[in-house]
Amino acid sequence: MPDPKTPSTGAEPTSPAAPDASAITSRTRPLDETPTLAAMAVELIRTPTALVQLSADEARQVVAFMRMVVVPKDTVLLREGDAGSVNTMLLLLEGQVAVDTGLAGGAPGLEIAVIGPGSIIGEMSLLDGAPRSASCTTVSIVKAAGLSRGGLERLIEEHPRVAAKLMVGVAQRIAERLRSLGQQLLVYSQIAASLQARLDQQRHET
Amino acid sequence: MPDPKTPSTGAEPTSPAAPDASAITSRTRPLDETPTLAAMAVELIRTPTALVQLSADEARQVVAFMRMVVVPKDTVLLREGDAGSVNTMLLLLEGQVAVDTGLAGGAPGLEIAVIGPGSIIGEMSLLDGAPRSASCTTVSIVKAAGLSRGGLERLIEEHPRVAAKLMVGVAQRIAERLRSLGQQLLVYSQIAASLQARLDQQRHET
Repeated sequence: MPDPKTPSTGAEPTSPAAPDASAITSRTRPLDETPTLAAMAVELIRTPTALVQLSADEARQVVAFMRMVVVPKDTVLLREGDAGSVNTMLLLLEGQVAVDTGLAGGAPGLEIAVIGPGSIIGEMSLLDGAPRSASCTTVSIVKAAGLSRGGLERLIEEHPRVAAKLMVGVAQRIAERLRSLGQQLLVYSQIAASLQARLDQQRHET
Repeated sequence: MPDPKTPSTGAEPTSPAAPDASAITSRTRPLDETPTLAAMAVELIRTPTALVQLSADEARQVVAFMRMVVVPKDTVLLREGDAGSVNTMLLLLEGQVAVDTGLAGGAPGLEIAVIGPGSIIGEMSLLDGAPRSASCTTVSIVKAAGLSRGGLERLIEEHPRVAAKLMVGVAQRIAERLRSLGQQLLVYSQIAASLQARLDQQRHET
């Protein structure tokens, strides 16, 4: 019996980089077997970028390497600081995931984000193998399209042009988050400066 | 005469996306014409990633699409908020660049970073065409390998497997910065929380 609190990750059965592959493959299946979800993934993958956009045919070639991942509610998908043992990037198709960046205790409204269809998670650990940068927990049943490290490597080998365009898109998504985090950092630095000023003022008054 | 305060960007002469290409191409030349710098670029491009690593031959294929860019000291390479009119990613080969993220006035030590050989700049605007996220100014004479948007597009067409691997590496670099910025955000949120606590305490005392 699969552990209900362990997500299916859609890792490739042949990938040596996925130690828990045998437990995983029994619980996922090719995304192409569910045509409505596969079509949804095709649309979401085709997010236009300034540089390149995948055609529908190219997006379908990506989808052919994806597995359908179904995760129950209240499941921890990634835990901050975990080593990248789940070598799979997930494209959310249905349901929502809470992302906790470990900033609880700071200013309100910045520490937790809820993301939904079209968002991707796990792509950074897939790329660099470094520990997770945030904790992700499902807040509903989640259906996602999973692309494992082995799947991405095979995509690069078999459809390199498509893989190159996909990676431009993934890099762009990460860049978007970097810009957004930079804005948050600016807000925090302004809050800190303003608090410091009030603290100094109070000291002078007393 | 070229304006000494406008950097050479190494844009492709044929790229329609580079409006200032005619002014630029007179001041750059193929990187391959300077074998020592080309060899340095090959080594720097081959930074190992968890996923894929370019072979020396593959890195040389990237270098073939690069132009040598020489920038005088005290030149503004990118200005925060600028639209991405300079569609070129620069791999620094010699010299140093100060990166100002606009956080001056916040906690000391976080607002300005100095980067050197092996660092890349301009890759985010190249990818998404969004405004620059930071201002970059040379603090010495800088020699860099420039890959324009047109060059990257041609690399994707002509050597897609190499381009895919290069983009994995670029995405990984951006992810690295995202992780680092996340850590800085955590530090700022802790500073803000600690200042708020002291402010509350002083209020109770007075």
